[in-house]
Amino acid sequence: MSDRPRAAILLTGSELARGAIRDANGPFLARELTRLGLEPARWTLVGDAPEELEGALREALAADLCVVSGGLGPTHDDRTVELLARATGRPLRVDAGLEAEIDAVARSVAERLGRPYAELAVGVRKQASLPEGAVSLGLAGTAPALLLEHAPGRLAVTLPGPPGELRRLWPRVLEAEPVRALAGRARRREQRVLRFFAVPEAAVAREVERAGGEGEGLELTICARNFELEVDLLVSPGGEPRAAAVEQALVAGFGDALFSRDERPVAALVLDRCRELGLTLATAESCTGGLVGARLTEVPGASDAYLGGVVAYANEVKARALGVPEDVLARHGAVSEEAARAMAAGVRSALGADVGIAVTGVAGPGGGTASKPVGLVHVAAEGPAGAAAREFRFPGDREEIRERAAVMALHEARTLLARL
Amino acid sequence: MSDRPRAAILLTGSELARGAIRDANGPFLARELTRLGLEPARWTLVGDAPEELEGALREALAADLCVVSGGLGPTHDDRTVELLARATGRPLRVDAGLEAEIDAVARSVAERLGRPYAELAVGVRKQASLPEGAVSLGLAGTAPALLLEHAPGRLAVTLPGPPGELRRLWPRVLEAEPVRALAGRARRREQRVLRFFAVPEAAVAREVERAGGEGEGLELTICARNFELEVDLLVSPGGEPRAAAVEQALVAGFGDALFSRDERPVAALVLDRCRELGLTLATAESCTGGLVGARLTEVPGASDAYLGGVVAYANEVKARALGVPEDVLARHGAVSEEAARAMAAGVRSALGADVGIAVTGVAGPGGGTASKPVGLVHVAAEGPAGAAAREFRFPGDREEIRERAAVMALHEARTLLARL
Repeated sequence: MSDRPRAAILLTGSELARGAIRDANGPFLARELTRLGLEPARWTLVGDAPEELEGALREALAADLCVVSGGLGPTHDDRTVELLARATGRPLRVDAGLEAEIDAVARSVAERLGRPYAELAVGVRKQASLPEGAVSLGLAGTAPALLLEHAPGRLAVTLPGPPGELRRLWPRVLEAEPVRALAGRARRREQRVLRFFAVPEAAVAREVERAGGEGEGLELTICARNFELEVDLLVSPGGEPRAAAVEQALVAGFGDALFSRDERPVAALVLDRCRELGLTLATAESCTGGLVGARLTEVPGASDAYLGGVVAYANEVKARALGVPEDVLARHGAVSEEAARAMAAGVRSALGADVGIAVTGVAGPGGGTASKPVGLVHVAAEGPAGAAAREFRFPGDREEIRERAAVMALHEARTLLARL
Repeated sequence: MSDRPRAAILLTGSELARGAIRDANGPFLARELTRLGLEPARWTLVGDAPEELEGALREALAADLCVVSGGLGPTHDDRTVELLARATGRPLRVDAGLEAEIDAVARSVAERLGRPYAELAVGVRKQASLPEGAVSLGLAGTAPALLLEHAPGRLAVTLPGPPGELRRLWPRVLEAEPVRALAGRARRREQRVLRFFAVPEAAVAREVERAGGEGEGLELTICARNFELEVDLLVSPGGEPRAAAVEQALVAGFGDALFSRDERPVAALVLDRCRELGLTLATAESCTGGLVGARLTEVPGASDAYLGGVVAYANEVKARALGVPEDVLARHGAVSEEAARAMAAGVRSALGADVGIAVTGVAGPGGGTASKPVGLVHVAAEGPAGAAAREFRFPGDREEIRERAAVMALHEARTLLARL
């Protein structure tokens, strides 16, 4: 087991537990805790049922740091604070200063939404009630973030469930003296990330073992998704020689497929390479419907290389906005190498870009035929010195096929740009 | 506590626990288990450390049904099956039939990737080892899904971690006789979903309480995200009158803001309304970079109403591809009501669509000014009988601002279409 302080993440909310919405706080908290040098050893997600929540809370409190998200709202099913008080054997007290703070926020919310204040007043006193010894770290809306040292050196932090609110309050947690003291006990580890394209997981794992594998000072994970394979090396002081041996073996064995060593995703690599070459970029998308553009513009500062794109979902748009010749569509169909190449060429000239990326395919569930089944995807890229195209047959459902097509289109552009 | 059979979800993988990648299996499994009539009472997510995984597994096995995802692969850090055997006190045995099945798959994978078979052979025997009494439900790649009745009426299911593989094997789980018997013990519940736009959570909660609130036969959750507020009513036999009272009170109090009663997301409502009216739709996006198009095309069959769009990230594309007048850009800037309206009008004529949706804004982190700060977003919609535009100032980071802008653009289109 790790020698680092152990952290537990507890995520609450019945809509999360039933899968009605997707949690965004766990990944954020886990990355932040890892960065602090703690081990996010366990996450637990439970609904609002008090028995489940109390049980999970008692377990999570065994960690050096327990971070709870959700259940701080004004309504009857928000029970985190009450159960934290019970699990730590502390009485609940109304904090008068906090109550005044929350009251002011509630009044301004009522005004902004044009609703009577009485609708909000009911929750103010509830949200100002804290377990004895807890301190407020600040408000997000009407919910306070709380910090409680419930045993010597053992901390509980409660944060509001809405991801934006949680993230806004997180810096207050990092600044709190007891959290800084805990992080001070952690040995920082260096994380090295290698990302490979289209190599089998078992082959990489075998190479890792041959080179010495995990051991004192080196923890390692291998994770494959959408044809990308990520190897994370977590290196503690003393583990550097072991890490270097593994890294060298992987570079020697799979160097051609190694596309990133610095955590930049493929979209950022494509944009950076365009900047290096002084080239502008445009996208033409059919089955992905905007996902490739969305991936590129996720990267802050994308605008200095990415001009924009055309989502050509209907054939008439492929012809009208991208100038795909009618006879290409008639002879080869919208899902064809010819159409993908014409889309890449078309978006370059329509938008005045140096490089065009295009993707067209059958995402399903309907629309497949014997010769063009669901999962058939063509991607193409065209630059000032040439073009390339590839055909794929992806397994999976509509969402997976679209995701994979978007990833592949970006890799096709990366490969083309690498040759320039 | 619920009287329904209790299910536990256990998600494994160090890259998940550190937040390096986002789990997709928990939400899928939770929705499926809820649909079966089980209570997904708890999810646990742990890394590959054997102590953490074994502890979490022992707790999860207390549920009527424990579903584990991940840790079935060929590599040293895939320990789910070994620890399931230990936690249930059963020896591991190699299943010869399964071994032959996995071997055949491994050989074809090696061939497809053009790698030596020896790289894959090492994992075959490991993946063919099962706890005594477990049965294979089929393979995804080289990993088998397993079912084990480890105590009378208490089941454990292990599934591979890659989401596509897990989903492909899930129907085999549903068909398995012990799972069917368990689901047969569950009382089916009806789920009713009401979605409101831009109303405060506390106001809805107060109305719910006034109308009788939760109680025998009715469980209820309220969840707000990105200006949408969802009320889920889970109705058991006998709870119908209570549910009807709550539903009527919400419709009476917030009817104007109620936009969906049938779980269709706003993108599907926009598409359906276009179909009803025989109208076609196009999008013009700046700061969202394709997210609005991606949302619309997530909906299967979007192509019969959605023609496509233009991602006009650079100003030159706004002018060139959407015909936004240069003087609008010069006088008002690219982030202005005027630009948004011109983009909506421009994409209608550029793509020959009846309805245009446009969004432009400052997503940050850079690019904000005193008069146009990060978070300022303009959305516009134009149809055959008029146009509308709104300005927003969203809190949050780049990702949140983009998400919120995309949701708001779709709601603006919904509102415009509702008036036609």
